[in-house]
Amino acid sequence: MLIVMRQNAPKEEVDAVVAAVRAQNCEPKPIPGGNRTAICVLGNRGSVDPSLFEFLPGVIRCISVTKPYKLVSREIHPENTVVEVNGVSFGQDNTDIPLIAGPCAVESWQQMKAVGQALKARGIRIMRGGAFKPRTSPYAFQGLGDRGLELLERVRDQFGLAIVTEAIDHVNYDRVEAVADIVQIGARNMQNYSLLRRAGRGGKPVLLKRGMAATVDEWLMAAEYILSEGNPNVILCERGVRTFSDHTRNTLDLSAVAVVKKMSHLPVIVDPSHAAGKWEFVIPLSLAARGVGADGLLVEVHLDPAKALSDGAQSLTLKNFDKLLNLLNI
Amino acid sequence: MLIVMRQNAPKEEVDAVVAAVRAQNCEPKPIPGGNRTAICVLGNRGSVDPSLFEFLPGVIRCISVTKPYKLVSREIHPENTVVEVNGVSFGQDNTDIPLIAGPCAVESWQQMKAVGQALKARGIRIMRGGAFKPRTSPYAFQGLGDRGLELLERVRDQFGLAIVTEAIDHVNYDRVEAVADIVQIGARNMQNYSLLRRAGRGGKPVLLKRGMAATVDEWLMAAEYILSEGNPNVILCERGVRTFSDHTRNTLDLSAVAVVKKMSHLPVIVDPSHAAGKWEFVIPLSLAARGVGADGLLVEVHLDPAKALSDGAQSLTLKNFDKLLNLLNI
Amino acid sequence: MLIVMRQNAPKEEVDAVVAAVRAQNCEPKPIPGGNRTAICVLGNRGSVDPSLFEFLPGVIRCISVTKPYKLVSREIHPENTVVEVNGVSFGQDNTDIPLIAGPCAVESWQQMKAVGQALKARGIRIMRGGAFKPRTSPYAFQGLGDRGLELLERVRDQFGLAIVTEAIDHVNYDRVEAVADIVQIGARNMQNYSLLRRAGRGGKPVLLKRGMAATVDEWLMAAEYILSEGNPNVILCERGVRTFSDHTRNTLDLSAVAVVKKMSHLPVIVDPSHAAGKWEFVIPLSLAARGVGADGLLVEVHLDPAKALSDGAQSLTLKNFDKLLNLLNI
Amino acid sequence: MLIVMRQNAPKEEVDAVVAAVRAQNCEPKPIPGGNRTAICVLGNRGSVDPSLFEFLPGVIRCISVTKPYKLVSREIHPENTVVEVNGVSFGQDNTDIPLIAGPCAVESWQQMKAVGQALKARGIRIMRGGAFKPRTSPYAFQGLGDRGLELLERVRDQFGLAIVTEAIDHVNYDRVEAVADIVQIGARNMQNYSLLRRAGRGGKPVLLKRGMAATVDEWLMAAEYILSEGNPNVILCERGVRTFSDHTRNTLDLSAVAVVKKMSHLPVIVDPSHAAGKWEFVIPLSLAARGVGADGLLVEVHLDPAKALSDGAQSLTLKNFDKLLNLLNI
Repeated sequence: MLIVMRQNAPKEEVDAVVAAVRAQNCEPKPIPGGNRTAICVLGNRGSVDPSLFEFLPGVIRCISVTKPYKLVSREIHPENTVVEVNGVSFGQDNTDIPLIAGPCAVESWQQMKAVGQALKARGIRIMRGGAFKPRTSPYAFQGLGDRGLELLERVRDQFGLAIVTEAIDHVNYDRVEAVADIVQIGARNMQNYSLLRRAGRGGKPVLLKRGMAATVDEWLMAAEYILSEGNPNVILCERGVRTFSDHTRNTLDLSAVAVVKKMSHLPVIVDPSHAAGKWEFVIPLSLAARGVGADGLLVEVHLDPAKALSDGAQSLTLKNFDKLLNLLNI
Repeated sequence: MLIVMRQNAPKEEVDAVVAAVRAQNCEPKPIPGGNRTAICVLGNRGSVDPSLFEFLPGVIRCISVTKPYKLVSREIHPENTVVEVNGVSFGQDNTDIPLIAGPCAVESWQQMKAVGQALKARGIRIMRGGAFKPRTSPYAFQGLGDRGLELLERVRDQFGLAIVTEAIDHVNYDRVEAVADIVQIGARNMQNYSLLRRAGRGGKPVLLKRGMAATVDEWLMAAEYILSEGNPNVILCERGVRTFSDHTRNTLDLSAVAVVKKMSHLPVIVDPSHAAGKWEFVIPLSLAARGVGADGLLVEVHLDPAKALSDGAQSLTLKNFDKLLNLLNI
Repeated sequence: MLIVMRQNAPKEEVDAVVAAVRAQNCEPKPIPGGNRTAICVLGNRGSVDPSLFEFLPGVIRCISVTKPYKLVSREIHPENTVVEVNGVSFGQDNTDIPLIAGPCAVESWQQMKAVGQALKARGIRIMRGGAFKPRTSPYAFQGLGDRGLELLERVRDQFGLAIVTEAIDHVNYDRVEAVADIVQIGARNMQNYSLLRRAGRGGKPVLLKRGMAATVDEWLMAAEYILSEGNPNVILCERGVRTFSDHTRNTLDLSAVAVVKKMSHLPVIVDPSHAAGKWEFVIPLSLAARGVGADGLLVEVHLDPAKALSDGAQSLTLKNFDKLLNLLNI
Repeated sequence: MLIVMRQNAPKEEVDAVVAAVRAQNCEPKPIPGGNRTAICVLGNRGSVDPSLFEFLPGVIRCISVTKPYKLVSREIHPENTVVEVNGVSFGQDNTDIPLIAGPCAVESWQQMKAVGQALKARGIRIMRGGAFKPRTSPYAFQGLGDRGLELLERVRDQFGLAIVTEAIDHVNYDRVEAVADIVQIGARNMQNYSLLRRAGRGGKPVLLKRGMAATVDEWLMAAEYILSEGNPNVILCERGVRTFSDHTRNTLDLSAVAVVKKMSHLPVIVDPSHAAGKWEFVIPLSLAARGVGADGLLVEVHLDPAKALSDGAQSLTLKNFDKLLNLLNI
């Protein structure tokens, strides 16, 4: 950390800061400049809290120099982490980009069976489907809950598909974990640290969506929670952030993929469906995601979007899904 | 809802939309304009999901007309809800603006005792203090946990102060509720619907912070979750939202207070400490919050911010707190 | 437009709104619902100003139904506009994505000559280079001005390259237009309507960058200013928008490309250099831009970024530019 | 500036950075830490461009330490700048907050006369009114132009009111300056540096609105352009920024007022009308602005908002304006 003093700060102010740094068992290193002094803070393990110094007389700013994450950092762990699920590898240089597909919500066995068959026929090996749905309105369809998990279990067994589904609290994590091959933590829960710790103690890979207003640093810190509890298998998922931009539901931030690939060894995939909010933009955004180097795609597919119980507008029909596979040369 | 068709959409497209609306048990009402038709959707209870129609051929946009919340809406419940805690009323036209004050985190009995005494001496009747702290980094101080709750209990009993403290998951909600007079749900958990439902089933008033990227509609919908489970005592708390603006930690959105007062009957208070991130801006923002008509203030006070275990930079010293009380004529 | 009344608004309020709509020479069409009335406004040419009705008693919201642009709209002009410059077509389905490349700023003849040669050798036909640079600080390098235009003229003549350079005010527009094959209007001037009108009266194609906080609608409205003055040759350019996201200088909003292609017939290209702010992310973002269907790329190239007078950090070296061309199969 | 190297960067990389800093006539000061070196850059006048070093091998980040503005900085000029216009002082500790009021646009002599009389009767000494209106749509009312300036001149002479009106380009700056007592530069032109320089060469005080996506640093830099050309009389005006928040037209960022008061000696006022977009929120936001310590208010008043040619929805009627004056004890 660097502590910047005001111009011509008197010696007493500088000395007081130096003492405060020492009190934190860190080594202060004052650097006198032309008209102002800055004080480097050395020897800290992890990051030092700037708030410890910002209020001291004469201090103008405290600037963090090192990133606050460790286990997820590529600086410390240079090789890619590869998460393998049902023969699909996330984080490897693949010829084909891995696809996870399926409906927003589990609705019925009839639906699950039909979509499971369709995915299997197309060589898709991982299926998504929500049993517990976090919804903005308490009056909206909240998912089939445990009944939905049973249907996912059945589709998994019948078609040999791996399953991704979301856990929303401690109470249902055990049950979700028993069924899912990958447990999803949704954007709204990205900073639900209690849930992240639970995921870290679990044995299943975790799909961690980026929060709607999370910086890349905060997103990686959320992954750090999971790794710090012992679970190394985290797949990050960019799904759009909230901005003033109103032509899509969220603003898909594809640069985040390139930045995460640089900062971290974890695989990072893209969910164009939730970002766009409209099916017609899912195909171009999927191609863009492949272009930027994403380690996979998470795409909503529904056999009859008009009858979907949630998010029909962003779901691809099978026909459009085939068009996407074709454009991806899969 | 209003469904807008493209220019000169053929009759078959309009008819298909009309049929889709009827299939939802709503009444379609086509309005032919000069060169385009729009279809009004009537008879819906609650809001209809636009995604049910957006993908239909010829549909350009679906526009929601009514707000999706009911129980929290002032249209339906015109009188202010007044939440009373320890003789303090939130939501009433008060001469003095109610204050909740205290440290960011519970740190020790010595600290609690000193701050409890100081608050009592100043006529403050409600104290804040975190026992469970959601922190961005897993390596940061996470609060004293259950031991923190014990200290809060003790300070409450000894000084007759009501207590506000945060619950972060189901596991600790029961314990927090037993100690707290107001249970706080933090910004990061504003869309943790599982936790909101738990709060709705509880008997204690809930302080619901606005999420960092939540619209006013989403915030009120989060409150609707609580009310819909039977708990009418919700105090909303504006604490800044995330924007590009980087001179404060978050951008305090005081217009939200005025808008919430219009849209809802619930009381709404302001937390200038977390919004600013720096103590020196807490005083002017507190005065601004009073100006805009906030029903209360939530202010961080620490006897020795330099030694605070979290958020010292945004905590007022007692001296500055006295300055604030003085400026507020309290 | 749709005017939404409060629940059970009395007849007098509805009648007053109806009269106000008529006063604007529009046709009001009240639609009584279960518990509230909405009033459709028909017969308006262009968009009606919602502010004309929003303050009337009983009115809750005014909702615009039609988009406010006409000449740029694909609804009205379904075929792509193709802008041709020096044998390069923007807006056509190209096998190869068109590239515009060159340094951020014109610095010297030596630089211009070297980069001109290098671009020509690689088959690039359009070169960028700023003579007038809008800079945040008055103390930063502001470009060579008229001398820079002379150097651009010379490089154009010597290497047969078309030139893109920016005009920043009326005073220099004539001069820029005389030299440039495409006149750039920068992000900071996207809502400088006086300059847009001047561009609309000019004879050269205009490269219109998206403003840092402009919605797609506002961007298209800015283009509408140019078209409405008689110049149909506008190339839109997405260059990132301002959000809370801090890992790149701006957040490249590639979904805007897909949305613009749907809403408008104008070509839209992408500037990954200004969006990223760092050269290492320019290559993946270029590939993403091609994936999403952009009609071209605007890429900064500098022979020696370490000595660039502006934006060296985001400039590709020739070696990296070759890598990009290779990845694009150009 | 501080240049952060990667962990265990070899000596050659550090040496290369040291050499690059020297090449800029600055003094490099390497600070070896536990596992990484940082290099302080001393001796620079103004700010050094980080892009000069960011691309060098081994460099992870360049961090600016000092703020880039000088003339507007309170560090250098500790006393408040007071701008006096027609007996009103902006920037002084006033008992009453100064008010500028008037219609969004100049519409007719009848309107000007009536509002001029009304303002004079209420003791208001400065009137606003737009003759040149920057509008998102080319089809919207663009102001009366030169005819509007004539009406402003007449109202000034007849009622002894000072006039604030906007200049939008070089062409009309001379004419505006001849009539206006304060020349406004609007939010859309905050980074129109050509116009800022013109304002800096002018003799009239300048009201500089904050751009919709401008940080406080950029806003102060825009003011620096004006001061650096010789005009010290700048009044800053916060008018809301663009965020995801959709309940008001823009998000009024009142913390910016407190921060500007700390960073700069220039007066800063607030425009609640454009921020809110709805008249009903103008009063609470005005009281909030006074609370936060604003040096003035810029409020839209229209005798008959229903007939306003622009922005009627955000204009106070005289009755509501009287209510505001009453609440402000003016």
